[in-house]
Amino acid sequence: MLALSLIGIGCGDPEQLTHAATRAINAADLVLIPRKGSAKSDLADLRRTICADVLTSDNTRIAEFDLPVRDAGEADYRKGVDDWHDAVAAKWSQTITSHLEGDGRVALLIWGDPSLYDSSLRIAGRLDPLPEIEVIPGITSIQALCAAHALPLNDIGEPFLVTTGRRLREGGWPVSADTVVVMLDGGTAFQSLDPVGLQIWWGAYLGMPDQIIMSGALAEVGPRIAALRQEARERHGWIMDCYILKRRP
Amino acid sequence: MLALSLIGIGCGDPEQLTHAATRAINAADLVLIPRKGSAKSDLADLRRTICADVLTSDNTRIAEFDLPVRDAGEADYRKGVDDWHDAVAAKWSQTITSHLEGDGRVALLIWGDPSLYDSSLRIAGRLDPLPEIEVIPGITSIQALCAAHALPLNDIGEPFLVTTGRRLREGGWPVSADTVVVMLDGGTAFQSLDPVGLQIWWGAYLGMPDQIIMSGALAEVGPRIAALRQEARERHGWIMDCYILKRRP
Repeated sequence: MLALSLIGIGCGDPEQLTHAATRAINAADLVLIPRKGSAKSDLADLRRTICADVLTSDNTRIAEFDLPVRDAGEADYRKGVDDWHDAVAAKWSQTITSHLEGDGRVALLIWGDPSLYDSSLRIAGRLDPLPEIEVIPGITSIQALCAAHALPLNDIGEPFLVTTGRRLREGGWPVSADTVVVMLDGGTAFQSLDPVGLQIWWGAYLGMPDQIIMSGALAEVGPRIAALRQEARERHGWIMDCYILKRRP
Repeated sequence: MLALSLIGIGCGDPEQLTHAATRAINAADLVLIPRKGSAKSDLADLRRTICADVLTSDNTRIAEFDLPVRDAGEADYRKGVDDWHDAVAAKWSQTITSHLEGDGRVALLIWGDPSLYDSSLRIAGRLDPLPEIEVIPGITSIQALCAAHALPLNDIGEPFLVTTGRRLREGGWPVSADTVVVMLDGGTAFQSLDPVGLQIWWGAYLGMPDQIIMSGALAEVGPRIAALRQEARERHGWIMDCYILKRRP
């Protein structure tokens, strides 16, 4: 029987690791580390750093593999994602089979938390035979963003919406909440909004040594964030950022 | 200068503690542990357990104090919360002053994450003089719930709304999302919804030895969750639960 641990490792700071995550990594026979190409090599590096820091078991092997690339040219977004999940599942199976004799415990270190805007649970559901699945929560970039700004995410007794850059750009400000968290924004969707009455709390490379944050009235700091974001992305070759918007009645 | 660390400790399992939280607890001169009355003594017990487990510094003292009770009879909810925050801030100041000579590092262990439906950041803002504030994120009950069910919180590229039981009961299903997380529900607000097409993932005492979870079509499992919840609350004397609802088009 194959067991698969999806282990949230936080969003950049190895200190965000939980004791449960440390234990689960050490309980694994095999740790899979995906390589995403040189531009995002910092992310694979964090996984290697964490393994080097916390592994005390001699029985745990580490296997790196090249993550298949999603076909961004596929016009049907859902089909593109679906095909990519199949390809990743096949790659997992292949890497596992070449290192384990049918059964054992495999660990995958997941950026952030396995439940939040992450594909691993869906990919794991495509494995055949289906493994026993364990999920270890990890600190998300939303939490790191709030911590960096010392910001309460919700107002007292009030809801908040977590959405994507694409959704914000296409749908505008949502009707159900005055607090909106924006994830997976490849650009600066906040610039598509009328900034009047909006505040923003933004952060990039959260938890990492290069962490940058900025906050203020969107009308004032929005353009500065956009410029800073572009400059940082050019310098690093990649960027991961997220932000919180609040509307003050 | 007073420094205040608000340290997320997860929602019941001491293993959910991060390495950063362990470090911050040990860096404190004083750890404040609120007592909320016997019914919720399990919560103070967890804080004591965590201190006993992770404290390796002889310089860290622990001070317990009785948390003021919020006036539930105050008709104006916001004013009731506001007055309560003032009372808690006064109690913090008093406890700190009686243990520290003006400056030092004080730690508060926060259930879940200090940014999520928690008052500590707002209370800290009322301290005079204002301390330097550090926030250490912790695993939330939402994350523990998703992990227990091996459930991806969001659908692919889709938003989700986090709201309260009161809001769900008063406002019905929100328009902005097909996934809704419900926190702070003193009852079973899900029973106020038309259950057709809704799925629920529910959990109580998440991360604790008494953890219970249940999931399925709301029409079918809703009444069973309500009965189980009432029975568990009577047996323990208290309950903390949360749930996720998804609407399938």
